[in-house]
Amino acid sequence: MTTMNIHTPCLVIDGAVAQRNIESLAAYTKSKGLGLRPHTKTHKSLKLARMQIDAGAVGLAVAKVGEAKVLAEACDDLLAAYPVISPQRCEELGRLACDRAVRVVADSLAGVRVLTDAAFKTGGTLGVLVEMDIGMKRTGVQTPEASLQLAREIDDAPGLRLDGIMFYPGHIRLQPDQQQAPLEVIDAVLMETIDLWSRSGLEAAIISGGSTPTAYQSHMITRMTEIRPGTYVYNDMNTVRGGYVSTDDCAARVLVTVVSDAVPGQVVIDAGSKMLSSDRCSGAPDAGFGHVVEYPQAWIARLSEEHGMVEISGCDTRPSVGDRITIIPNHICPCVNLQDAVWWLDRDGSLETLAVDARGRVT
Amino acid sequence: MTTMNIHTPCLVIDGAVAQRNIESLAAYTKSKGLGLRPHTKTHKSLKLARMQIDAGAVGLAVAKVGEAKVLAEACDDLLAAYPVISPQRCEELGRLACDRAVRVVADSLAGVRVLTDAAFKTGGTLGVLVEMDIGMKRTGVQTPEASLQLAREIDDAPGLRLDGIMFYPGHIRLQPDQQQAPLEVIDAVLMETIDLWSRSGLEAAIISGGSTPTAYQSHMITRMTEIRPGTYVYNDMNTVRGGYVSTDDCAARVLVTVVSDAVPGQVVIDAGSKMLSSDRCSGAPDAGFGHVVEYPQAWIARLSEEHGMVEISGCDTRPSVGDRITIIPNHICPCVNLQDAVWWLDRDGSLETLAVDARGRVT
Repeated sequence: MTTMNIHTPCLVIDGAVAQRNIESLAAYTKSKGLGLRPHTKTHKSLKLARMQIDAGAVGLAVAKVGEAKVLAEACDDLLAAYPVISPQRCEELGRLACDRAVRVVADSLAGVRVLTDAAFKTGGTLGVLVEMDIGMKRTGVQTPEASLQLAREIDDAPGLRLDGIMFYPGHIRLQPDQQQAPLEVIDAVLMETIDLWSRSGLEAAIISGGSTPTAYQSHMITRMTEIRPGTYVYNDMNTVRGGYVSTDDCAARVLVTVVSDAVPGQVVIDAGSKMLSSDRCSGAPDAGFGHVVEYPQAWIARLSEEHGMVEISGCDTRPSVGDRITIIPNHICPCVNLQDAVWWLDRDGSLETLAVDARGRVT
Repeated sequence: MTTMNIHTPCLVIDGAVAQRNIESLAAYTKSKGLGLRPHTKTHKSLKLARMQIDAGAVGLAVAKVGEAKVLAEACDDLLAAYPVISPQRCEELGRLACDRAVRVVADSLAGVRVLTDAAFKTGGTLGVLVEMDIGMKRTGVQTPEASLQLAREIDDAPGLRLDGIMFYPGHIRLQPDQQQAPLEVIDAVLMETIDLWSRSGLEAAIISGGSTPTAYQSHMITRMTEIRPGTYVYNDMNTVRGGYVSTDDCAARVLVTVVSDAVPGQVVIDAGSKMLSSDRCSGAPDAGFGHVVEYPQAWIARLSEEHGMVEISGCDTRPSVGDRITIIPNHICPCVNLQDAVWWLDRDGSLETLAVDARGRVT
């Protein structure tokens, strides 16, 4: 089995590149005394999770309880980095917590109450992190005072253990040579919050932050104890165009076939929005729906569900119908989520199926 | 089981509305003497395919050979409305064609050659439609003359049967009260092409066109023999905002839970791009990522993978954390494709699982 005789469109993971990405960030976090808790939303795979743990990860992050149940096979320290509100799902977390560390976040009193009930019903002790919004405007309490109020509720609740603070700096897309002011602002908010908690006798043992764009600047946020990057394992055009990595660091590539060249100046590939997702590139919405490795001047101008329209007027040569070419997607996470399985190209050149184990686990 | 106690986010199909959509278009096409070949890309479901056939469909359209293999269980007249280029997949079509009508499209000589080889290897006779581009600029030969050249190749090829012409008017989004000029242009091109073929002794028995936006104006394209709409079975905000249907005709709705209200003027729902897809609304890219049924003034402003950020400053009341609300997606086809299964709310009020049978069938 080689990439020459597998069906397209398909996602092929270069195992050596993924391993290098995993080891590189593990080495950085180790050198800075930071915990690394990879977010498994990107790969949703037990194999990759185990590679991350073998490289020294302190635990794993998941977005959904269904993912936690799958990843529990690989890890005994799981953080559901999401405000879980469903009583049934909180009880699932409570059951998982009976024989491993299970942590979850909350940003509302309603959320804390559901978690308290679940811990009571299941007998599991749930570690809870107060989610704070530090500029992303998504989830998270808005002020240090509000975090203290919620922390007190958690600390008082039977069955819950106050573990600390979670935030997500997904709005920050600093390049390595840019000034660090936004990270310093985060650091100041965290310091204020920790001090406030401390004066009330509450400890934030875990300060969990981090994202792929800011991963290698994490030491600038001095109070952070761990980071939760996801995309770094595979990378994509978002991380390339953001200036964080090069295309050589992109481990996940979509192999496609040219199916039509009937329209002048264009070829059509067999990957559309049902393969690549419709995600545009962050900060470069007109850059097209992915990067064509063999034809860097090409522009994936439009997607239908199963067609990708590739403008090739700027290319010196053009691919023919039947040719196979390679696309680096804009955003690898939704692309992986569209697959039941991907191909794993091992260091030794072998190609095998890699299940996307935690995809579609809705219960 | 009711929608009160199922996990969110999930897609719930109102069976009565889907049935009404199916019957309504079937009645229209019957009254106009047109064939209806529903495109199954929207629902990817054997149950829905059978409902469409029971209502009088002449056959089914699919986008992928893997879908054809699944839908073959429900139908013995299948059209792969896609230029299939892979030799292995063309052989799959050839094998299917041994005991049913299997049709496929081509817009290149390379495509015709692969189909010829597959028909020879498998002994199946493949019906081939020449795909013509009538303004969509996606796939399809560009001129009547180019269609004749390809039609001759198909007609001469052993194992292939020249079935006619396929086109896709996906670029046309006429509202019922708008002038019909674009459809008249299509009709003129088709007439010219049919005449050209006829003078060469070639017949286009099938002229396959149609899309949901133009479905009820199909009789304006006088030479068309069948249409292939997909979305009409469920509808979505694309068809609502296009003016073709009302929200009452939207059979597929995403049930979500509010998981956070920490950011002022906003609530966060548990459906992001991994549930709704990132597709923006055609013709209304700033209209948000879906319509909130219970809060029509709300605006789904941004999506993360598992979060939907809903601006509610324009609403008189606001939902609370834990409340369930209902979203009509912008584009139902990629939304369905993200699910392994959906919920089917039957006319009798019962709720059962409906598999998305043909999803992810890559081989």
